[in-house]
Amino acid sequence: MEDLAAPAASSMGFTYMVAASQTLGLAVILMTGAWMGVYRGGIAWENSNLQLNVHPLCMIVGMVFLQGDALLVYRIFRNESKRSTKILHGFLHALALVIALVGLIAVFEYHKKKGYSNMYSLHSWCGIAAFSFYLLQLLCECREGVAGLGNPSSTNNVALRLLQSALIRKRAAVSEWLLGLVFFLCPGVSFSLRSRYKPLHVFFGVSLLILSITTTLLGILEMLLFKISDSYSSFVPEGVLANILGLLLVAFGAALAYILTRDEWRRSPLAEELALSMDFKTLTEGESPAGSH
Amino acid sequence: MEDLAAPAASSMGFTYMVAASQTLGLAVILMTGAWMGVYRGGIAWENSNLQLNVHPLCMIVGMVFLQGDALLVYRIFRNESKRSTKILHGFLHALALVIALVGLIAVFEYHKKKGYSNMYSLHSWCGIAAFSFYLLQLLCECREGVAGLGNPSSTNNVALRLLQSALIRKRAAVSEWLLGLVFFLCPGVSFSLRSRYKPLHVFFGVSLLILSITTTLLGILEMLLFKISDSYSSFVPEGVLANILGLLLVAFGAALAYILTRDEWRRSPLAEELALSMDFKTLTEGESPAGSH
Repeated sequence: MEDLAAPAASSMGFTYMVAASQTLGLAVILMTGAWMGVYRGGIAWENSNLQLNVHPLCMIVGMVFLQGDALLVYRIFRNESKRSTKILHGFLHALALVIALVGLIAVFEYHKKKGYSNMYSLHSWCGIAAFSFYLLQLLCECREGVAGLGNPSSTNNVALRLLQSALIRKRAAVSEWLLGLVFFLCPGVSFSLRSRYKPLHVFFGVSLLILSITTTLLGILEMLLFKISDSYSSFVPEGVLANILGLLLVAFGAALAYILTRDEWRRSPLAEELALSMDFKTLTEGESPAGSH
Repeated sequence: MEDLAAPAASSMGFTYMVAASQTLGLAVILMTGAWMGVYRGGIAWENSNLQLNVHPLCMIVGMVFLQGDALLVYRIFRNESKRSTKILHGFLHALALVIALVGLIAVFEYHKKKGYSNMYSLHSWCGIAAFSFYLLQLLCECREGVAGLGNPSSTNNVALRLLQSALIRKRAAVSEWLLGLVFFLCPGVSFSLRSRYKPLHVFFGVSLLILSITTTLLGILEMLLFKISDSYSSFVPEGVLANILGLLLVAFGAALAYILTRDEWRRSPLAEELALSMDFKTLTEGESPAGSH
């Protein structure tokens, strides 16, 4: 009886955790909006004082919420085709990157208008590290995406499949090199590359999300110490709100990391994907795919 | 050939990563010491100005380095008995807790002497959360430790084993309750409790280490903005040193998280542990352990 009940309970646990993570994520966005709106005078691009407020909102929507949800896509849509899931995963990452870029431009323009220095604080150093690694990870993603979307086994013509395969190899050369660099920097993972890439990719994904959240916490503290340094120690509502926002960000990160690191919640390949994968393996090993015509 | 080479390469990768993590950990401690010694006037308990400097040093040695190394123990000493490894794991955690406690007393005493408020900043909120969860995790650890160290199968007398078993259950009741609370808060993990506890324990361990590192980064930024707010933006050596310290802390956390989440680097039970475990299972299921007398 216990064995029969296990998958249902586990799946219920998954649903609860996803619901909790999304509630936390939305609460974090709303609280950031409330903080900027109620205590920081709102957001505006042209007004140099309010342009700074675009930064936290964009970074939390892009580098925290959307980046986090992009990682959840494979766990949530486990019964959709890998192709659709990959497109959604890539789309959410790209959207996160664009929104984060707007947030970065906002803060650099604000500094320029005010004559403030750039890139001196620990928040900015961690932020640039997170953003650069995120770009690198997305390039690796593109390589995987190119290989996955143009999977040669989606056509039955053997010659066309080999041509597609060669084309994919060429297009993926640059990001392959970047991926190679990562493997080079991590000794012991250069063999049986493909099977080892996936857990490494998941590890980098979760690590980058955590680094992004850490950077956000540093940004919250920096803003509080810049803006309300005199009253922060008197537990003023703005300080308490921002502190709670910080703790909710930690909880959001923990919920996502928990979901993404559970073995039992990993997406298993669908039956047709397993068949295609076997077919592709046979093809690349130089044999004719048995029984597919 | 590749299959034969794989374990050696993997083990070499493990050695490199452990060496890298320890180098980073020691660098972090030395840099904190240098920061406090060169730029903050050194450390002293009685001098109210220098007592604050005890805090970062203790927290980094206790809550970051020792806590991190306590997690590595099972991976590094994979051929030692589980009993010895557990003792070392527990000892390092206990030492970390005591050193962190000294660091906490230092900052609270400093605040009291100076008439500053306590517990208002995001750094202090995250810090208290990390410290409280660390205590909770250690209580769960004790329960596991009691069960493991006093394993009834270490004696051949069946009556004595059952008595020990009952005693362990009683002693572990309090921490069992705390563990139960954790399971209650995470739906879907309350069944097949024992087999599911280990990965959860590892997840909490790594999460707490990351939260501790995040708190440390918040502390570094807070100290910089309190002490050198006027010169921080001019890239003064103290600011640059502390920022590099922050990045090294991130790298230390990433290296440890990488080592702890690799499936292939997990400790496998030794042959005699497997035999003992089977013997204990037979005993608790009410049968006489076959062939052991």
